[in-house]
Amino acid sequence: MRPMGFKVIKECSGTGARLGLLETAHGTVETPVFMDVGTLGTVKALEPRDLLELGTQVVLGNTYHLLLRPGPDVIAAAGGLHRFMGWNRPILTDSGGFQVFSLAKMRKITEDGCRFNSHIDGHEVFLGPAESMAMQRTLGSDIAMVFDECLPYPCDRPRAEKSVAQTLRWAARSKEEPHADGQQVFGIVQGGVYDDLREACARELVRIGFDGYAIGGVSVGEPEEAMYKAVEASVPHLPKDAPRYVMGLGVPHQMAECVARGVDMFDCVIPTRIARHGTAITRRGNVAIKAAKWAYDQGPVEEGCDCYCCRNFTRSYVRHLLSCGEILGLRLLTIHNVRALNRFMAEMRDAIREDRFDAFLAESRRNTSNT
Amino acid sequence: MRPMGFKVIKECSGTGARLGLLETAHGTVETPVFMDVGTLGTVKALEPRDLLELGTQVVLGNTYHLLLRPGPDVIAAAGGLHRFMGWNRPILTDSGGFQVFSLAKMRKITEDGCRFNSHIDGHEVFLGPAESMAMQRTLGSDIAMVFDECLPYPCDRPRAEKSVAQTLRWAARSKEEPHADGQQVFGIVQGGVYDDLREACARELVRIGFDGYAIGGVSVGEPEEAMYKAVEASVPHLPKDAPRYVMGLGVPHQMAECVARGVDMFDCVIPTRIARHGTAITRRGNVAIKAAKWAYDQGPVEEGCDCYCCRNFTRSYVRHLLSCGEILGLRLLTIHNVRALNRFMAEMRDAIREDRFDAFLAESRRNTSNT
Repeated sequence: MRPMGFKVIKECSGTGARLGLLETAHGTVETPVFMDVGTLGTVKALEPRDLLELGTQVVLGNTYHLLLRPGPDVIAAAGGLHRFMGWNRPILTDSGGFQVFSLAKMRKITEDGCRFNSHIDGHEVFLGPAESMAMQRTLGSDIAMVFDECLPYPCDRPRAEKSVAQTLRWAARSKEEPHADGQQVFGIVQGGVYDDLREACARELVRIGFDGYAIGGVSVGEPEEAMYKAVEASVPHLPKDAPRYVMGLGVPHQMAECVARGVDMFDCVIPTRIARHGTAITRRGNVAIKAAKWAYDQGPVEEGCDCYCCRNFTRSYVRHLLSCGEILGLRLLTIHNVRALNRFMAEMRDAIREDRFDAFLAESRRNTSNT
Repeated sequence: MRPMGFKVIKECSGTGARLGLLETAHGTVETPVFMDVGTLGTVKALEPRDLLELGTQVVLGNTYHLLLRPGPDVIAAAGGLHRFMGWNRPILTDSGGFQVFSLAKMRKITEDGCRFNSHIDGHEVFLGPAESMAMQRTLGSDIAMVFDECLPYPCDRPRAEKSVAQTLRWAARSKEEPHADGQQVFGIVQGGVYDDLREACARELVRIGFDGYAIGGVSVGEPEEAMYKAVEASVPHLPKDAPRYVMGLGVPHQMAECVARGVDMFDCVIPTRIARHGTAITRRGNVAIKAAKWAYDQGPVEEGCDCYCCRNFTRSYVRHLLSCGEILGLRLLTIHNVRALNRFMAEMRDAIREDRFDAFLAESRRNTSNT
């Protein structure tokens, strides 16, 4: 088995931004990286060959969704998620914690985990650290996440304290469970908007010891500044030589701000979800391609983009497809949006490599204020 | 402009099957050929690059649908349908006659055409030979079809007689209208199940003179034998050196039977439509991939198929995607089904080339009786 782990290969002077290499059982990931969400074993509307062409490095699989459909037996029969979905590059799986607390109904939390009813057919399922890690072992992901409780926003102090304590006990148990060969395990810093809880949680996770550390419970409706504050409260207490991952974040300028604060990894459903609603991500902000003003427009979805959609089709055509509900319309926009974020991250890595991340961040802020 | 027209390059002894080359303004088509339906300017769920990879030679565009959405002005702004949809190979457009009589509401037929209400938003539209040919000129298709009335099944003799007379007057007017540069025009033989009407219609169309001849009003619910009888009543009265096209047919063994009777071209929505309903076309008949029995199946959708879906994914995975309503599921099955028909036609052409079409037809009949 190849050597695994994380290495910072370049720090950008004057900022927290850093270039890293994350070695996994299915290849090397260059960070900072945006990971595409493939909830049910597919990044919606895309094939593995598309992802390679678009520069996607890591696909995220959702333990909760895959547990319900197709279930562990079907995945096991295929020999794991990589083989099942035909993606032989790195996969990160979440623990299902977030989904249990956001999607499932009539849940009951105990020390061992959470009893809930499936959002598909209502049948009762139990998911805790043991069950989550067992499912992630079956999935065979390169990176497994600990089972945690994701706090809502807002959340009062006593609730947050209790929850962080639970998350830490579950983190310790998640680490003790058996893992797939070569599977790395990341802890998750919770604590809501309470800086001291974030710090305590981070310190305790580091004491337990994980291959990487996520910052969870952000991008859940709190103000943008509160999100950066949560990152700032967590990062200084995490090891320099471990990757840091902000979960559920995919807005370009927000990712740049987090990278400036030392974050290495991101994931979000935004690029694929808004594509299905007819919205393109561009360097100047989001564009509603369904709008009537594009009916005759012979330009590409985004000038200067190198994706298959922008190289071959006009806004007029893509708008027509979207207006008619044609699958190709949302597929072409998905291709563009995934490429747009991957290009953004690649240019960010170049900026760090060439010690000009400050300028990149400044431009990212300017583009945001234009939209 | 390159020379255009049709050439029979090989006749298979003992059958009516023939190998042909159809030269168009956008390249040469090898016949017998199955054409994929791209109703609204996209073969549903597929990109032009997919079609090239799958061996699709001709895309069919629907004049009726494109007239309503996006409308002629948007297509004209792009410089025609080829540029609009990014497909620079041959395009055949139907005339809209079939759709007016099957989809539209509250229609009124006059000598000039048909007044109807859009099936989308109810607005009133008039379509006759002049309007259809003008739209097909705007689309810039390589092959335009005359505006005709497609008879339903069953249809009594007086109605059929009256309709054939109307179709012939519209055919003559369709030929007189101006066409796009290099655009070929095909007549359409109607006549329902009445052999003498089919013969009379064919003879009159030949007298008017067209670049090719379609047999319409088949595959509209009549028994399979009645369909072959309609083909047999029409083909002998059509020129040997012009292509013959059976409209709306895409069932493999039925296409083989028609080729045995001298037919060169086919089109049908079947491969893409049934893919969206979870059904795979295989050499042994249709297979419902959604069926529970495939839940753990590690084989491809069809053994021996060379398509991207069959080379990379299992029935288990495709079934899972279909069960979850994932776009990728229907896209992968669409890829397979389009490839399945293109492979079937390519093997049929090889059989004709090698003078063993009889054996190909016999095998096609055997496979059908197995299903």
